[in-house]
Amino acid sequence: MERVRASNRLLRYSCNKSLFDRRYNPSSQNSIHNSPSGYSHGFVNKCGDFHLYNGNHKWSVQTCFGFLRYRGETFRDSVEKGSLDSRCRGFGSLAAKVERNPSFSTLNADDISYFKGVLGEKTVVQEEERLAIANTDWMHKYKGSSKLLLQPQSTEEVSQILKYCNSRCLAVVPQGGNTGLVGGSVPVFDEVIINMSLMNNIISFDQVSGILVCEAGCILENLMTFLDNQGFIMPLDLGAKGSCQIGGNVSTNAGGLRLVRYGSLHGNVLGIEAVLADGNVIDMLGTLRKDNTGYDLKHLFIGSEGSLGIVTKVSILTPPKLFSVNVAFLACQDYFSCQKLLVEAKRKLGEILSAFEFLDSQSLDLVLNHLDGIRNPLPPTMHNFYVLIETTGSDETYDRQKLEAFLLHAMEAGLVSDGALAQDINQASSFWRIREGVPEALMKAGAVYKYDLSLPVEKMYDLVEEMRKRLSDSANIIGYGHLGDGNLHLNISAPQYDDRILMQIEPFVYEWTSKHRGSISAEHGLGLMKANEIFYSKPTDTVTLMASIKKMLDPKGILNPYKVLPHSFSSS
Amino acid sequence: MERVRASNRLLRYSCNKSLFDRRYNPSSQNSIHNSPSGYSHGFVNKCGDFHLYNGNHKWSVQTCFGFLRYRGETFRDSVEKGSLDSRCRGFGSLAAKVERNPSFSTLNADDISYFKGVLGEKTVVQEEERLAIANTDWMHKYKGSSKLLLQPQSTEEVSQILKYCNSRCLAVVPQGGNTGLVGGSVPVFDEVIINMSLMNNIISFDQVSGILVCEAGCILENLMTFLDNQGFIMPLDLGAKGSCQIGGNVSTNAGGLRLVRYGSLHGNVLGIEAVLADGNVIDMLGTLRKDNTGYDLKHLFIGSEGSLGIVTKVSILTPPKLFSVNVAFLACQDYFSCQKLLVEAKRKLGEILSAFEFLDSQSLDLVLNHLDGIRNPLPPTMHNFYVLIETTGSDETYDRQKLEAFLLHAMEAGLVSDGALAQDINQASSFWRIREGVPEALMKAGAVYKYDLSLPVEKMYDLVEEMRKRLSDSANIIGYGHLGDGNLHLNISAPQYDDRILMQIEPFVYEWTSKHRGSISAEHGLGLMKANEIFYSKPTDTVTLMASIKKMLDPKGILNPYKVLPHSFSSS
Repeated sequence: MERVRASNRLLRYSCNKSLFDRRYNPSSQNSIHNSPSGYSHGFVNKCGDFHLYNGNHKWSVQTCFGFLRYRGETFRDSVEKGSLDSRCRGFGSLAAKVERNPSFSTLNADDISYFKGVLGEKTVVQEEERLAIANTDWMHKYKGSSKLLLQPQSTEEVSQILKYCNSRCLAVVPQGGNTGLVGGSVPVFDEVIINMSLMNNIISFDQVSGILVCEAGCILENLMTFLDNQGFIMPLDLGAKGSCQIGGNVSTNAGGLRLVRYGSLHGNVLGIEAVLADGNVIDMLGTLRKDNTGYDLKHLFIGSEGSLGIVTKVSILTPPKLFSVNVAFLACQDYFSCQKLLVEAKRKLGEILSAFEFLDSQSLDLVLNHLDGIRNPLPPTMHNFYVLIETTGSDETYDRQKLEAFLLHAMEAGLVSDGALAQDINQASSFWRIREGVPEALMKAGAVYKYDLSLPVEKMYDLVEEMRKRLSDSANIIGYGHLGDGNLHLNISAPQYDDRILMQIEPFVYEWTSKHRGSISAEHGLGLMKANEIFYSKPTDTVTLMASIKKMLDPKGILNPYKVLPHSFSSS
Repeated sequence: MERVRASNRLLRYSCNKSLFDRRYNPSSQNSIHNSPSGYSHGFVNKCGDFHLYNGNHKWSVQTCFGFLRYRGETFRDSVEKGSLDSRCRGFGSLAAKVERNPSFSTLNADDISYFKGVLGEKTVVQEEERLAIANTDWMHKYKGSSKLLLQPQSTEEVSQILKYCNSRCLAVVPQGGNTGLVGGSVPVFDEVIINMSLMNNIISFDQVSGILVCEAGCILENLMTFLDNQGFIMPLDLGAKGSCQIGGNVSTNAGGLRLVRYGSLHGNVLGIEAVLADGNVIDMLGTLRKDNTGYDLKHLFIGSEGSLGIVTKVSILTPPKLFSVNVAFLACQDYFSCQKLLVEAKRKLGEILSAFEFLDSQSLDLVLNHLDGIRNPLPPTMHNFYVLIETTGSDETYDRQKLEAFLLHAMEAGLVSDGALAQDINQASSFWRIREGVPEALMKAGAVYKYDLSLPVEKMYDLVEEMRKRLSDSANIIGYGHLGDGNLHLNISAPQYDDRILMQIEPFVYEWTSKHRGSISAEHGLGLMKANEIFYSKPTDTVTLMASIKKMLDPKGILNPYKVLPHSFSSS
């Protein structure tokens, strides 16, 4: 009897299109999207935890309030008092303070002349408006005061720039698409900005092996479009794909939506060309899937956030494009069911599983309340958790049958309370839009404290519940993320920034993560924001070893200073 | 008409079991295997380029002749004259010479007492017989003269050993299963052998995430058996699995048969615990799929062949076990068809493709002529190339249909001339036995010069053909390997070792590989054999950087000396 009921239920949402249509309106705004290439993965405007940079950089004090602080004052206090200068600046949550390294030189007219001699007039940028944009991250959370932006067009130019800066002890910040979330790609003080946008050539693509070689400034979405025409895809996909650059992706070891299927960039990047602080070009640009000739040094540069060298070229293994994509949006009664569903999905869907995302009911409510054109594909019954499952394979009919059989089994086993299976690409997009709309909804809801944590899957939601107990009614606690990768996005939404709330969150959230051997930065990196928090995830000996490597590769510390490593280590 | 013919042909080998059976005798020796666990991946005695170590270490001068040379004399000359001592020894192909580093101390009685105090009597081994085994690699190609073998049982013991050795300037060689092919795991002179066999505990396994944590001395096959019971598999599989240890696999970045599906260990290893030369324990033993908190230092130790630190624990992501395995053995008329078949297989078989191996007709002939119980599953028509395709998925019926449809298409397109699809696990094993029997057959055929190269797939076989032109009738040139990974095993078989042949091969083979930006060691590593050849695959600046890292982590150079880096660099 139970089996029959479950079957009927599955049929209702997977096959009865008219019934499905009554719950869901695919013509609603923002929910329909087809990629320009004609091929769509069924995703629209994937934000992940990013918003695309829109070029509109009006400074919003309110947005920053609570994030930027300076000697115990808030950034707003400082701005009002005019006390914020470039000698000493504090960022981040509770205690991060940083002073300009006095050993760095200050830019002078001779420097500008030198750079113009090497790069030409046009790519040595001193215009205030362009500098204002490059000095600020897209969230308007971090703001530097650089007076110079350079746009090299070749590895040789990057090499000459760094050689000169190193000899002059001029600090630099490498900048890709500037879409990061931890203040890694903007100057902290007056560092010279090395913008990689003009190094945007595809160098080669091998149709047999699927190996792409390109310059670091290639925008991720452009690479995706190029590969789409070749019948391949990038092994990573991010919300910021329209702006972020592959060099930045590699330098920050970007995670994103395809990691559960294709793994991290440490597995997919086959080679790198990087320029060291002294201008030395290190050619690790292999195009081989296997190469065991000595230490694999490229991995040092993957995820080092531009602090060990500037990535100038990348070689990457790209998987063949698979045409069959199915997306289901499911409701689960409790977190344990979500976990069990994940285990079952890995086993039953096996090789076609390409995403397993989750959000709690608070996340869904937030999206439904704050974003236009988004509807809940399920009847408005109370469910505690929602899971989005995507499969990608090479056979439309078979993949669909397989997913339907899996869902039937999951309902019979009581793991899934209800669910909807997208009937076309628009519906698939609209399901993705719910998951990806969470960060946008959070920004609209008011102040938000964002944490990007890796935790053992079984412990992950405990933190959300503990945080709810700690904060009771003073904030709305939201948990969502990449369950398939053990990556929780914990977000605390409040009407406005409030130090009392912040003190309830930190350092508790880091201590809790550390206690469970989690990572305080799953995919966003440390940047400036969490450089001093590294010890919550890494032991002192390991951090000391990192600092030794930094010292060896960049003895004067000119590359992206104040980031990644704790300030006490990098200044010593 | 062509389509009908192709269909009929496919049906003949894929469905008509009785016809298939006439060509193939599954009851023949060596061709049947079921794993003790009851689950078999359809492989038997996977040798890859390895043979399992069998404990029978009688020294064979004939086997070594031509490999070991000492001041211009052959090893045999030296043995006859009694002139081989431990002050200066040459190994490898044409010119590798190495002298004992005079800064290393010589073991004394106080050292032995110290180690006995730390480890106890039983795990401080001085027995000649046991030392003789540990001093020699399984090929009997390399032979050290160590007087001491230590068997630590904990990370703390490894740490104490290294701390002491570093202070005394005693060189050490870490040893796992000692199954390597480049002399990386045996002493060159009198280095203390640190054998990891007793650190063989599984520490934890997470059923939700599939993350396994274990000590470095766990034998790969034991981990496979453990995981099999949990419904998971190791992401790597090697011929040496019955002897090799996970610490050695990680330290050499072992490749093997599952790489085409699951990628390299850089993608699958989540964490490492390693002990540095000074005894410092570096805890990088994360169990998280995503962790962007600082430089990902574990990658330095993956593939550094024990020269930067001794890996003591490993955390690894294991994929769920999939039950449906199909294997096809196909004939192709030319190398271009093999390449095209690979591209098609990636696209059409997509997510279920798990192996794509190739061998030329010379390889097949060698196997058929030298190994007992192996039959050609195809009629004895002349074909130039053979391809083994394996699929692994979660649905027996569907996967089979998919493979059959692919094969039908490949025959219609003229890519495949003939083929056989295994009807059961025994037939699948016998197909694998052909591919994996090549190294064994080569050893039986006489002298063999072995090269493990990564090359762009489209260039790969050109080298085999050029080598045939160079050597004309003086040797039998064999090409086989992991086509799906761009990894060629080039083997030159001759009745006996002959310097004239060797001079025709080297340095030509390395120069040719270098010219095509290939790797002179795809998966075997550099060890002692190719330490001096590194420049064929890596530029000087990169090697210099490697040497700086070695110097930083192991200033006295006590860890696995004379290996990986060129002798000129490591002695400076």
